[in-house]
Amino acid sequence: MKNFFGPKTIVVVGVSKEKRKIGNVIFRNLKNKFKTIPVNMHEKEILGEKCYYSVSDTKEKIDLAVIAVPAEFVIAVTKECGEKGIRNVIIISSGFKESGNERLEYELQKILEEYNIECIGPNCLGVFDAHTGLDCLFLPKEKLRRPIKGGISFISQSGALGAAMLDVLADGGYGFSKFISYGNGLILNETDFLKYLGKDKNTEVICMYIEGIKNGKKFLKIASKIKKPIIAVKGGKFSKGAKAIMSHTGSLVGQYEVYKGALKQAGVVLVDSLEEMFDTAKMFEKIKRNSKKRIQIITNGGGYGVLMSDALEENKLELAEMSLENKKYLKEKMPKAVAVGNPIDLLGDADVKRYKLALEVCEKDKNVDIIVLILLLQTPVIDEKIVEVAKSVKKPVIVVSTGSHSKQIISRKLEKSGIPVYAYTDQVARALKNVCF
Amino acid sequence: MKNFFGPKTIVVVGVSKEKRKIGNVIFRNLKNKFKTIPVNMHEKEILGEKCYYSVSDTKEKIDLAVIAVPAEFVIAVTKECGEKGIRNVIIISSGFKESGNERLEYELQKILEEYNIECIGPNCLGVFDAHTGLDCLFLPKEKLRRPIKGGISFISQSGALGAAMLDVLADGGYGFSKFISYGNGLILNETDFLKYLGKDKNTEVICMYIEGIKNGKKFLKIASKIKKPIIAVKGGKFSKGAKAIMSHTGSLVGQYEVYKGALKQAGVVLVDSLEEMFDTAKMFEKIKRNSKKRIQIITNGGGYGVLMSDALEENKLELAEMSLENKKYLKEKMPKAVAVGNPIDLLGDADVKRYKLALEVCEKDKNVDIIVLILLLQTPVIDEKIVEVAKSVKKPVIVVSTGSHSKQIISRKLEKSGIPVYAYTDQVARALKNVCF
Repeated sequence: MKNFFGPKTIVVVGVSKEKRKIGNVIFRNLKNKFKTIPVNMHEKEILGEKCYYSVSDTKEKIDLAVIAVPAEFVIAVTKECGEKGIRNVIIISSGFKESGNERLEYELQKILEEYNIECIGPNCLGVFDAHTGLDCLFLPKEKLRRPIKGGISFISQSGALGAAMLDVLADGGYGFSKFISYGNGLILNETDFLKYLGKDKNTEVICMYIEGIKNGKKFLKIASKIKKPIIAVKGGKFSKGAKAIMSHTGSLVGQYEVYKGALKQAGVVLVDSLEEMFDTAKMFEKIKRNSKKRIQIITNGGGYGVLMSDALEENKLELAEMSLENKKYLKEKMPKAVAVGNPIDLLGDADVKRYKLALEVCEKDKNVDIIVLILLLQTPVIDEKIVEVAKSVKKPVIVVSTGSHSKQIISRKLEKSGIPVYAYTDQVARALKNVCF
Repeated sequence: MKNFFGPKTIVVVGVSKEKRKIGNVIFRNLKNKFKTIPVNMHEKEILGEKCYYSVSDTKEKIDLAVIAVPAEFVIAVTKECGEKGIRNVIIISSGFKESGNERLEYELQKILEEYNIECIGPNCLGVFDAHTGLDCLFLPKEKLRRPIKGGISFISQSGALGAAMLDVLADGGYGFSKFISYGNGLILNETDFLKYLGKDKNTEVICMYIEGIKNGKKFLKIASKIKKPIIAVKGGKFSKGAKAIMSHTGSLVGQYEVYKGALKQAGVVLVDSLEEMFDTAKMFEKIKRNSKKRIQIITNGGGYGVLMSDALEENKLELAEMSLENKKYLKEKMPKAVAVGNPIDLLGDADVKRYKLALEVCEKDKNVDIIVLILLLQTPVIDEKIVEVAKSVKKPVIVVSTGSHSKQIISRKLEKSGIPVYAYTDQVARALKNVCF
């Protein structure tokens, strides 16, 4: 499967001269990083590259074909790929099972099987790999930002949903590894990608948007063997959603409760929303499963401390109880009005020095495993020095910071230092729960 | 109470010459809009205004006093205000019940009662009114943006939490009316403010962060008479959170389940998080209670349509079933692959024209009450024309749009046209549920 992510030579079939056309966008994205050959029966040259009439006409050994021609030509092109000895094919084209053309899809399957071709698609966005630079997303970069290199991979049955998520991840500065949009999943499906990413050295956390699982037993077996966190959102929980899936990727959808139980048993974290999926992924990058999880809250807003405490308790998470000695020490060193408990309420006029003192004591306290640091940056006394202070703490620090975009300068710096930042207390609690259980 | 929001003359007690000090910031904020007199026993002049030694020395009739002196001087200052005939006082100063000084708070109460003074605080941020411009928030505008004029008011027992929310509201372009941070709520409390905002012509939706309710019966009676939506977040749901409140605003906290039942009966929408509070407030500005709620989804991303449908069903909301005639019409007019059901999946290449057609048919369909419009703007074919198209629809349109900040140009324009925009499907479903039940 590695030819999908790091091929030597690629052929793109269906490259129009028109800049906005799918084939053209894909060709441009790929040719910057890989040896990429365009195929189009009507053109002789595209963007300075010799354009071939057909796949059979190309001379080189080809590792990957990306097909973006109208549905009715896909079978012929795929056959040529097979004849040419290409074993990895991404079929972007739609117009198969999802639009009622069961027959066409069946014929395509026969060809793919005959030539033993590994195929992603049809009806998909294909692949994006932040590490190798492979990018068949036909959405222009000004519309869809690409995330930076990192550890989160995302397998999505839905292309547009995946694209929206990539855009959000890029914007949030999340580190990313591989995105796979597999559409109808005719040959390769969720199970194959899961298995591959389980072994992929650049992938630390696997996120999935699943509508249906083709081979449930195999999927669960593979999932339960993977030690990396797997976080999944299931589309089609209810009958109406399930109905919508039929016309989307043509998948048959099982009963949600059955899925839920089975996935949980296989160690998959099933979450309720896309937002929760990435909140959780971010948390997994910082906090390992099976470690102790006694949480200390430090805040400069009393109400936020209360809500954080509520949210942790609601999610059955454990609040830390600092040693009497450390509490006494903090009380002595802090202004009188500071509340030393859990939360530690540093009050609205808390500056970085006060935060530093609280963090240092929590860091050395044996009853504290994780620190939730609430930073309401509307006060004038906290500046960027807080980033260095938080970074130097040798226990996991999770930040809650709510506010307008101007606050995001500090948030972004914190995230770059490996400290996850969330806007709301309940996001933190949900993500922590997903990591802790 | 109206002197808190639109006074003729204000005195600020405790105005330092130092720009970063609380009194100074408040004085500067107020003097731009109101006749404002500074009091400080050490200064003769501040920012070009004559500074008085004490409240008693001032000559004018004064409608509102804002007190920002250390706790130990508050009682003497308040007494002077009483003698001077000032009936409205905001006490910003902390160091009372919340830090264990029950005695000082009790003495303050006696003075306030003796002179029949309406008091907000102590231990609070005070008041902000987007309509009159009254602003005692001592947080500088570059740290805490102020929201524009509009219909949402927010009563908050916690100051810092309120400030963070104002910052978020300003950033999101929400229209705002009054913010009241009342801290310890010694004289005026949540019940008084609720009553006032219930009659306030600029307030359309009342949001509340409550830790404890001082006079439960009265609160519920008033709440049940108010026809405007009241949305509340309760701090201290659980024992640990409740404990944190003691050192925050000194409130005693009742059992959450009791609150929940009683508030619901009084028509208050109790939500789980601050995010949900504003998601719901935004929805209430668009959709009235007790109207029909059959929802039609239109999407350009199949997966998002599935998740939206799931989320609506999970929240027991009703999906619309368009008339056969309209479905037939749409099928004829749309490209073959478009799925005409609920959701209507316009596919990834949907342009504004395709959206317009779908919206027009939903608008005239008698079985559709509300339209949830999913706009994944990662595709190159949707432009700003969508704003005009969505705006012209004569049924409530709710937009879901996920993506990086560059997408927010269109989102902001939609919101300015009165169309609420949400990032995630589950936010919409939760907010709709809160409005519909």
